Amino acid sequence: MRVDLNSDLGESYGRWTLGDDDAVLELVTSANVACGFHAGDPTVLRRTCERAAERGVVVGAQVGYHDLAGFGRRFVDVAPDELTNDVLYQIGALEAFARVAGTRVAYVKPHGALYNTIVHHEAQAAAVVEAVRRYDPSLPVLGLPGSQWLRLAGEAGLRTVGEAFADRAYTPEGTLVSRREPGAVLHDADEIAGRCVRMATQREVVAVDGSVVAVDAQSICVHGDTPGAVAIARSVREALTGAGVELGSFA
Amino acid sequence: MRVDLNSDLGESYGRWTLGDDDAVLELVTSANVACGFHAGDPTVLRRTCERAAERGVVVGAQVGYHDLAGFGRRFVDVAPDELTNDVLYQIGALEAFARVAGTRVAYVKPHGALYNTIVHHEAQAAAVVEAVRRYDPSLPVLGLPGSQWLRLAGEAGLRTVGEAFADRAYTPEGTLVSRREPGAVLHDADEIAGRCVRMATQREVVAVDGSVVAVDAQSICVHGDTPGAVAIARSVREALTGAGVELGSFA
Amino acid sequence: MRVDLNSDLGESYGRWTLGDDDAVLELVTSANVACGFHAGDPTVLRRTCERAAERGVVVGAQVGYHDLAGFGRRFVDVAPDELTNDVLYQIGALEAFARVAGTRVAYVKPHGALYNTIVHHEAQAAAVVEAVRRYDPSLPVLGLPGSQWLRLAGEAGLRTVGEAFADRAYTPEGTLVSRREPGAVLHDADEIAGRCVRMATQREVVAVDGSVVAVDAQSICVHGDTPGAVAIARSVREALTGAGVELGSFA
Amino acid sequence: MRVDLNSDLGESYGRWTLGDDDAVLELVTSANVACGFHAGDPTVLRRTCERAAERGVVVGAQVGYHDLAGFGRRFVDVAPDELTNDVLYQIGALEAFARVAGTRVAYVKPHGALYNTIVHHEAQAAAVVEAVRRYDPSLPVLGLPGSQWLRLAGEAGLRTVGEAFADRAYTPEGTLVSRREPGAVLHDADEIAGRCVRMATQREVVAVDGSVVAVDAQSICVHGDTPGAVAIARSVREALTGAGVELGSFA
Repeated sequence: MRVDLNSDLGESYGRWTLGDDDAVLELVTSANVACGFHAGDPTVLRRTCERAAERGVVVGAQVGYHDLAGFGRRFVDVAPDELTNDVLYQIGALEAFARVAGTRVAYVKPHGALYNTIVHHEAQAAAVVEAVRRYDPSLPVLGLPGSQWLRLAGEAGLRTVGEAFADRAYTPEGTLVSRREPGAVLHDADEIAGRCVRMATQREVVAVDGSVVAVDAQSICVHGDTPGAVAIARSVREALTGAGVELGSFA
Repeated sequence: MRVDLNSDLGESYGRWTLGDDDAVLELVTSANVACGFHAGDPTVLRRTCERAAERGVVVGAQVGYHDLAGFGRRFVDVAPDELTNDVLYQIGALEAFARVAGTRVAYVKPHGALYNTIVHHEAQAAAVVEAVRRYDPSLPVLGLPGSQWLRLAGEAGLRTVGEAFADRAYTPEGTLVSRREPGAVLHDADEIAGRCVRMATQREVVAVDGSVVAVDAQSICVHGDTPGAVAIARSVREALTGAGVELGSFA
Repeated sequence: MRVDLNSDLGESYGRWTLGDDDAVLELVTSANVACGFHAGDPTVLRRTCERAAERGVVVGAQVGYHDLAGFGRRFVDVAPDELTNDVLYQIGALEAFARVAGTRVAYVKPHGALYNTIVHHEAQAAAVVEAVRRYDPSLPVLGLPGSQWLRLAGEAGLRTVGEAFADRAYTPEGTLVSRREPGAVLHDADEIAGRCVRMATQREVVAVDGSVVAVDAQSICVHGDTPGAVAIARSVREALTGAGVELGSFA
Repeated sequence: MRVDLNSDLGESYGRWTLGDDDAVLELVTSANVACGFHAGDPTVLRRTCERAAERGVVVGAQVGYHDLAGFGRRFVDVAPDELTNDVLYQIGALEAFARVAGTRVAYVKPHGALYNTIVHHEAQAAAVVEAVRRYDPSLPVLGLPGSQWLRLAGEAGLRTVGEAFADRAYTPEGTLVSRREPGAVLHDADEIAGRCVRMATQREVVAVDGSVVAVDAQSICVHGDTPGAVAIARSVREALTGAGVELGSFA
């Protein structure tokens, strides 16, 4: 039994700090490092890559829309060929810091609105796939099981890695409960940790209606942008290792 | 006898076009491609790298201050460690497109105010040197002979390449006449072409006082941002090849 | 008989020039001045306001999405309250230059993707209306007849001004032929000028199927971003004045 | 006896929060609100203006260099006429929100590197003065006593207001001890509060060598970007009111 823990990191910018990256880097096995388009300035990227490398945490490119004011959380109707180039630019920029840190970009995970959009938006999903394929077809891609993003990536010959969300409620169909619904986000650290153990060991989760649904995830996403989130991530890690689950990158 | 011709390219941005890159790429042997901080969006970078690669023009990273509104022409008092990271970010971003185009970033040339600043500003010069050294110590760097930039780069073990300016007047000391002085910029295509031939074949140029000064340049910089500039560049190329000078990249 | 001629101006940015604003300012009666979010830096805004004021051309705020790389031509899914604030910011910024130039912002016209979106997107249309209403409810708004933008503006008590497009083909329903269709954009200066005269004098236009449809426009939009566009705008102006149509701002 | 307390506010941006503006607005009489160039997005500006207006705190424009990545803390060698326009743009943008909040921009205070630069840089100081003078010559300007900024503003007929710094050490000449020196910044809340009382009631401060120097300040600057800073500001306010000093804006 083995699973990856991933988290969004490197999302500070200039004078503004976001999250406790050092604490999270002690807990996860994969760091989705922002690349400067939605967050992350060059100095943040470098520090994050260096600290990840020091701890043996694998670096992935967390690519997003070019929208600093919106933190990449707003859909932008970018033309697919321009989106491909925006993603290539971000991966390349992060790669420079990964190499300086003695490692390299080992996977790609879209951020925020781009992540959500390419669950269903085929043209943008294909554009991101094209970027990865052109950059390095050996790079795995991380995303939502069942998304167009993973489907098209697989068709293009990329290795796809599905992720589950530690603190999100699931529907009986195995999709995420919308954040607009009550109970969409879980807050109890013990409950979340227990769900993660079940995801990792039995590949299943209890949905909001009490039914048990399959979760096919090689990675679990945890958050680190609040003190409470770090505490939850710590609980998840401890519960997983306590249950005999080996933590390790998929890359 | 052999010399490189370099020019600034990829300086369009979104809706705004600058220069006639296609025409210039027929004339030069090295393309200083903007990297997005002072000019050049990802789609421009990709197109420029692809067209350069198609024509056998070598791609270099034209790195600048993070100042789109000022086109990188205003000194910014960036802390050296942040400047190192800004330069790494830009080289890495361009590298992605160079590789997709089947080539790679083959040298680094600073742009605008950064170019002028590191002629004398040791801390910023050292910061740019550090970026290149950390990125790839085999990359040559292009700049002004006698600058702190080339001096420190040489001391750091980087290969340094001095450039001359096709259309600029020189002082008897072999430095450039300030643009604030009358006659600093030459406009006559024949005169400019003749000077370039002398630079390439005899390593010398006639200064503003009529004296002859040595010019130690393996590369000559030409411009392409106006129709007149492209015509001058064409004259320079024709005069050089007519004089038996071989045109080729230093990289 | 009287009509306004409006055109997008102030869309240069830093080193990049777009359009021949001086030429267009000799022809139009209303200048839709970019406000810095999709184009237009502060120096461009000031010069445009000053030159407009000198020629008696009325200044309007051409507000857009915060997307310089996309020139405001890509839909951004901004939350309505944030969009309201983005529009307020832009109007206020332009107002400073209008006042320094001895005039003031006299109307609001959305740009690009925002213009197109609020033809039908009620929440964003309402957000822009809210910005104008809160800023100054006496400001008229300019847009597409039949759009949600003008409908909601009217319901909010704002004065609405419909515009026609000099060089666009119309459907038999009186809407614009999509740019994706052949023939959507007209290029013959005489034909365009003739259509504008008919729009201004008879409030009608010949649609693509030959039928005559009503056009209820107090303003006609002309372009100035290419030499050909300026020539067309000049033809339009001459034809209108030759037909006895008075040219004047609606504001 | 009366003094103004001012603080930098509205410096959050998008996803990134900086400082506890609500807490500080309970303590100060003047809010230096960021205008979007170094910090502060439109939604932050609006909320800050509205909350300031609700509490009777006067709104001033905290104008800075156009450098979000550097938080306006890096000198940028902007041409004076462009700097004038950058400042006009920022004042105008903030004015829109001030007016929506039922108040108006009542003074101008430069931020960060611009503040420090125009202590001595005459051309940039004159450029900022020109912006205020052209925008509204009745606006007072806030800055360092003895700076070129206040000197030139005074010569231009603007009302000038000198400020003292609650937590900074002073030289025997009455200037600030450089932040590079040990002891430049004070941290003891009681000591700081005591100094502020002496500044307000006796117009003097004890310098680092123990000598007493005159401080001619109508306003005292306090910080709010850390929990400790807010506590200090609260101590200052309580000490001043306890000493019978009336707190009120200079505007």
